[in-house]
Amino acid sequence: MKKRILTGDTPTGKLHLGHYVGTLENRVKLQDQYEMFIILADTHALTTLSATPELIKNYTREVLLDNLSVGLDPKNVTFFIESGVSEIYELAAIFSMYVSHNRALRNPTIKDEISSKSLGDQFSLGFVNYPIYQAADILCVKGQLVPVGVDQEAHLEQAREIARAINKLTNSNIFPEPEALIGRVGKLVGTDGNPKMGKSLNNTIYLSDSTEEVEKRVMNMFTDPKRIHPTDPGTIAGNPVFTYLDSFAKEKDKGKIDEYKDRYEKGEVGDVEVKKYLAQVLNNFLNPIRERRLEYESQPEVLDKILVEGTAKTKKVASETLSEVRSEMGLI
Amino acid sequence: MKKRILTGDTPTGKLHLGHYVGTLENRVKLQDQYEMFIILADTHALTTLSATPELIKNYTREVLLDNLSVGLDPKNVTFFIESGVSEIYELAAIFSMYVSHNRALRNPTIKDEISSKSLGDQFSLGFVNYPIYQAADILCVKGQLVPVGVDQEAHLEQAREIARAINKLTNSNIFPEPEALIGRVGKLVGTDGNPKMGKSLNNTIYLSDSTEEVEKRVMNMFTDPKRIHPTDPGTIAGNPVFTYLDSFAKEKDKGKIDEYKDRYEKGEVGDVEVKKYLAQVLNNFLNPIRERRLEYESQPEVLDKILVEGTAKTKKVASETLSEVRSEMGLI
Repeated sequence: MKKRILTGDTPTGKLHLGHYVGTLENRVKLQDQYEMFIILADTHALTTLSATPELIKNYTREVLLDNLSVGLDPKNVTFFIESGVSEIYELAAIFSMYVSHNRALRNPTIKDEISSKSLGDQFSLGFVNYPIYQAADILCVKGQLVPVGVDQEAHLEQAREIARAINKLTNSNIFPEPEALIGRVGKLVGTDGNPKMGKSLNNTIYLSDSTEEVEKRVMNMFTDPKRIHPTDPGTIAGNPVFTYLDSFAKEKDKGKIDEYKDRYEKGEVGDVEVKKYLAQVLNNFLNPIRERRLEYESQPEVLDKILVEGTAKTKKVASETLSEVRSEMGLI
Repeated sequence: MKKRILTGDTPTGKLHLGHYVGTLENRVKLQDQYEMFIILADTHALTTLSATPELIKNYTREVLLDNLSVGLDPKNVTFFIESGVSEIYELAAIFSMYVSHNRALRNPTIKDEISSKSLGDQFSLGFVNYPIYQAADILCVKGQLVPVGVDQEAHLEQAREIARAINKLTNSNIFPEPEALIGRVGKLVGTDGNPKMGKSLNNTIYLSDSTEEVEKRVMNMFTDPKRIHPTDPGTIAGNPVFTYLDSFAKEKDKGKIDEYKDRYEKGEVGDVEVKKYLAQVLNNFLNPIRERRLEYESQPEVLDKILVEGTAKTKKVASETLSEVRSEMGLI
């Protein structure tokens, strides 16, 4: 029997190149080898969009399109909407009894977000509960492997602790301890070199960006800040333009990139020429993704079917898991 | 149309005289005048019973019997099991996005419990979430009135804040702001005079206690600690024996109680005589309760039917409420 993967996205915006490198690429690679469930975590999205919940509906559709456009095959993969699987909420309620409040606050990702978003003490209880809900997402389908960005590793550790706690309590093996599968680059820097990439930082390239948008984004990218003239020797390390080239160029282009790196370090090529080349590389990478997106966009009934069938299938699995948990715990 | 009441119990043990005075009495009085829903909050019970979840099943049955035995009529009242109404968990997940973590921790009842149970920083995330789940219990049926012990008033304030937040967010009137109905005595002291009454404190008289158990409990009650001999003048104020007499004697016995009080203050009656009288008063009070309990206990199929039908009815109401919330918020 194939091992089971649970992965997914919180639809607070469209997916970008960082998501591709961090997790989407892995999903595509693993879709044949594993039984894959992909959650569209619409209620979780309220953590960020509590003031504008009406945006979530459209983002959910966009994120589904993002996933399909990179080559995830709905024949292989089960897509589901969180709010269609109410068992997740009940499991989370049970799990929250086995996680100390202190432990929840010690979560490094939670701490990072509080600090990076300058939340101070202005964050919701839902924000603190987030990792518990994520554990319920994973464990409701007994996910064994979770392809995640490196910033989600702490949440997965929380899910493992919960799995162990429930197994120990019930003296059973209801839950596997889900393992992380960290993406290739782990984390892609923003177009401004910021290690965080995001809509609010305006430093992203979306999978759904047009050719022209990509060109514009690339032309505005940060490079080596100490380099003023094309004849100044430049630095490759930490230079977003070369990071992106390394991440998205095809194998056959590696020679050309090495040549550019050499010339850049010697001060023999301008930023503009390298950026134009990067725009070309990125558009070559994005073209087949754009084509698949267009195809799905033209068939809304297919999109609906993917979600309805996937959610029903997941609900069945989750319902069995919940019954098992309740029964092993001796609950009603 | 009758106004709607939501009330109920967390089945972590059998109900006692404190529950009667604090809320059950009100429930009985109000059952004709209002449309009443009574929750048996089985998952909430994990807050206390996380290490022994298998106990909750039986406590749930006992608590249902407690409610029926005091005279709540299942023809009037809808009894339901929390875990049968999964909409509560989903509503709580949504609500938790509109309650700041700080606000949740500022809850005076939460603070009191942390202090009185010496929890220090050893409490679960579920414990902090408790008032949010209680808000979901109340609001899922749009409860307008909640007969509560005085210690639950803070939770109700939280429910009102959530109702207001969701109404404001959606510019609608989905939720009423539930009002508290504080019980007659508010809070009954334990048999040892401790203002907290509880199983772990061993200072309670249960509604299901036998005649002999009640006699034993009463004989061990605390009285006036400064009084050594029956001829010493005694104090009435804060004396649990007289508090219980005032709370449970029938109208026609008031004269006799006043006489006892007078003699007690003058040092003309011993503790034993007053206690014997109290035991009689309490057993007179409990006898019809015991009879009704026996009747229900002998008909398990009736108990099942009460819960199955009540839970199905509540689920329908809660499902409509959840749909309304999701639709007004513009969610999927």
